[in-house]
Amino acid sequence: MKAPNLAFATIEDLAPLLAKKKLSPIELLEHFLARIEKLNPRFNAFITITAEQALTDARTAERELARGKRRGPLHGIPIALKDNIWTKGIRTTMGSAILRTFVPDEDATIVRKLRKAGAVIIGKTNLHEFAYGATNENPHYGPTHNPWAHERITGGSSGGSTAAVCTGLCVAAIGTDTGGSIRLPAALCGIVGLKPTFGRVSVHGVFPLAPTLDHVGPLTRSVADAAIVLGTLAGRDPLDLTTAAKPTEDFLQGSKPKRRKIRLGIPKEHMWERIHPDVQRLVEKAAASLVRSGGAIEQVSLPTLPAAVDAANMMSIAEATAVHEQAGYYPSHAAEYGEDVSKRLGMGGDIRAVEYLKGRTTLRQARTEFAAALEQVDAIVAPTVAITAQKIGTETVRIGGTDEPMRAALLRLTRPGNLTGLPNVTVPCGFTPEGLPVGMQLIGPAFAESDLLAIARLYEQENNWASRHPPSAA
Amino acid sequence: MKAPNLAFATIEDLAPLLAKKKLSPIELLEHFLARIEKLNPRFNAFITITAEQALTDARTAERELARGKRRGPLHGIPIALKDNIWTKGIRTTMGSAILRTFVPDEDATIVRKLRKAGAVIIGKTNLHEFAYGATNENPHYGPTHNPWAHERITGGSSGGSTAAVCTGLCVAAIGTDTGGSIRLPAALCGIVGLKPTFGRVSVHGVFPLAPTLDHVGPLTRSVADAAIVLGTLAGRDPLDLTTAAKPTEDFLQGSKPKRRKIRLGIPKEHMWERIHPDVQRLVEKAAASLVRSGGAIEQVSLPTLPAAVDAANMMSIAEATAVHEQAGYYPSHAAEYGEDVSKRLGMGGDIRAVEYLKGRTTLRQARTEFAAALEQVDAIVAPTVAITAQKIGTETVRIGGTDEPMRAALLRLTRPGNLTGLPNVTVPCGFTPEGLPVGMQLIGPAFAESDLLAIARLYEQENNWASRHPPSAA
Repeated sequence: MKAPNLAFATIEDLAPLLAKKKLSPIELLEHFLARIEKLNPRFNAFITITAEQALTDARTAERELARGKRRGPLHGIPIALKDNIWTKGIRTTMGSAILRTFVPDEDATIVRKLRKAGAVIIGKTNLHEFAYGATNENPHYGPTHNPWAHERITGGSSGGSTAAVCTGLCVAAIGTDTGGSIRLPAALCGIVGLKPTFGRVSVHGVFPLAPTLDHVGPLTRSVADAAIVLGTLAGRDPLDLTTAAKPTEDFLQGSKPKRRKIRLGIPKEHMWERIHPDVQRLVEKAAASLVRSGGAIEQVSLPTLPAAVDAANMMSIAEATAVHEQAGYYPSHAAEYGEDVSKRLGMGGDIRAVEYLKGRTTLRQARTEFAAALEQVDAIVAPTVAITAQKIGTETVRIGGTDEPMRAALLRLTRPGNLTGLPNVTVPCGFTPEGLPVGMQLIGPAFAESDLLAIARLYEQENNWASRHPPSAA
Repeated sequence: MKAPNLAFATIEDLAPLLAKKKLSPIELLEHFLARIEKLNPRFNAFITITAEQALTDARTAERELARGKRRGPLHGIPIALKDNIWTKGIRTTMGSAILRTFVPDEDATIVRKLRKAGAVIIGKTNLHEFAYGATNENPHYGPTHNPWAHERITGGSSGGSTAAVCTGLCVAAIGTDTGGSIRLPAALCGIVGLKPTFGRVSVHGVFPLAPTLDHVGPLTRSVADAAIVLGTLAGRDPLDLTTAAKPTEDFLQGSKPKRRKIRLGIPKEHMWERIHPDVQRLVEKAAASLVRSGGAIEQVSLPTLPAAVDAANMMSIAEATAVHEQAGYYPSHAAEYGEDVSKRLGMGGDIRAVEYLKGRTTLRQARTEFAAALEQVDAIVAPTVAITAQKIGTETVRIGGTDEPMRAALLRLTRPGNLTGLPNVTVPCGFTPEGLPVGMQLIGPAFAESDLLAIARLYEQENNWASRHPPSAA
């Protein structure tokens, strides 16, 4: 394989080459390290590059693979971690000034799992401060830049992980998602992002944002790769009591999904409201393409969803303040936060318990409605984000004739995935005339990631938008 | 059997007689209806007596049993229900003025289960208004009276159910328990009360007090009876998503438990602090009696428990206000509540979400500590209540040299059962020199009711205090 191909190859491409010793893990790693050196200053995807540790790990992988001890598809694959995920002996800043020099003495459960699977951790990626924001404009480490338009946001809070995958600085990356932080930047940068079912992946050792809504998941160049990484991340963790005791599973289910009749649900409420016309057109076209072999698009009803999205926002703000107060960071270090995060932490303190608890009831009702809708259809389809990537510094966006604050415009279509806990994948579904990527999201029944990813792969098989790479990363 | 024996017989006594047609369900019911007519004005145990419906049900039971269609041990057994449990076509007041004439159009899940098991619902019992208090001094329906001392409280909020069982007005009763409302009156009146594991029994159709702490369970004259009733109540309910999917179980496990070595845990913290000396002496003696066949009493450590008890109190107050606001009763009907409940509902509105959420973390920590302690011992033992039944109208109680508000003094030892969700039984363990009953509580591991009840039965076998009946109910 030639270098440019290596940079944008998938795990599915690379794993057999590594297994058959046609590719050296050290060579692969060095290829990415060279690219990071050249391109990271442009995109600001990484906060910390762990070249030395990665080289040690790549050498171990090479030795193991040489003697036939293959750990699985991630063996020797360079992977980046969002910098709110604890890495033993490697500083983990949370994108904050407060923890600029913090070095955990323990790996997060998912890091232990990735290492055990032979993955090579290449670095820690930039994020919105404490994962508490949607733009990835980080006041301490600088903004990440959208690879398709340098002056635009990647979206966040897993913007660094997303930019690293999108620009070929690693093969896959791990993000976290409380209101959309995996799916949102994936959509705005034209890659695949998967938020698994709540309880599927351990969050032990991941700095919490809002514990009842927090998820961990992969950012990848293909749906198959998301399935492969999920296979390593998933599973009951005694250190995280929210994880479900589910048997291990092959989320990939064969090399090529078969065409079948797919019923997609279009919610009457919320999910298709106030969408940028370019986004709307592309997602409609993608959904139509998915059902053309005898499938159908049906309307489903989620009447509580609008209230639930507001409630989830309120609840996440309250939970975040509780987390930061309990950690002892807020209000004692209030001055060390960026302005936006500090403001939201203040707002969280004013929320009444009764409001929070009413929100919980609203969320429960919305979950019941989603479960009913997903008895009717295989997946719910919608745009991942109502708009495309906006310019860095933009605070409001005009859409459907009204000005909307940036945060709300970015997150309103992804919050449903968090408040229901349902598995939710975004796949790239084309580019606007301006050349900005657009994502289509699919939401499936709880713990049915395999089926959901099979549907996403059907689309991707015939519409592989992720195979386009940003010219700026050539 | 003669009439006085019938009044105080257990399900274990009566079920074989009913099965063998040596006793008529109609005769049994009429016996209790006659006693209710005579004695209820004295104790104020019932708000509503459902004589007509009960007679119909007893006749059906008689017919079914006559033709050999036996539904199980509750077939033909008169059972009373706390009046916060929905009964189709029978008014359900919640002990409130607001719902004085409310008639549900649906049975609670547990009512459906009891009816299906052939139980005869004899009436709806008095309670603290909306189950929101510990004394059963109800401003709308009057206080219940302690059968052992008429001027004293039964404790609440299941005081009516407790008094009905204690005075022989029914064979068993159902209560609810958010901070101690089953175990507390059971202890103060000298009967058995069981709060099962959270998720063991459906709360669908039971008016909530604080949904994360609410439990439903039996009040009975023996531990075996509690096991029998639990066998009917338990099980996954699609209408209550908090119920656990556990296989059906025989909680009784044989007619007579075998002597065995029992390890009991005495917490260093909280559970044995500021106990009335008479209570302390009786519970110590009972615990010693349980371990005398080669068992042991060990100290266990629950360092977070004191903070968790405070947190659970705060959280239940917040949850109660959320429930009453969502129901539309508060604040719009504030004037129709009793003074104490109205005051607590007001307090609930002032609690910050952040405090509530910090409480949740504290509870999680306490649960981890209980789980560790219950790896070390078979059950945790403590007094059920720190004091004995006080006079109606008492607002503070002097104990250990300090004045303590009545509510705190009554509930502080039972809250741990709610905040951990662990199964928790109280058995009578003697009488003070004043002639007031005292209860010993045992807490076991989650979903291990069978083992917990077997331990309680071992004690009861040799120390059957519940076989004493209050002279006032002769």
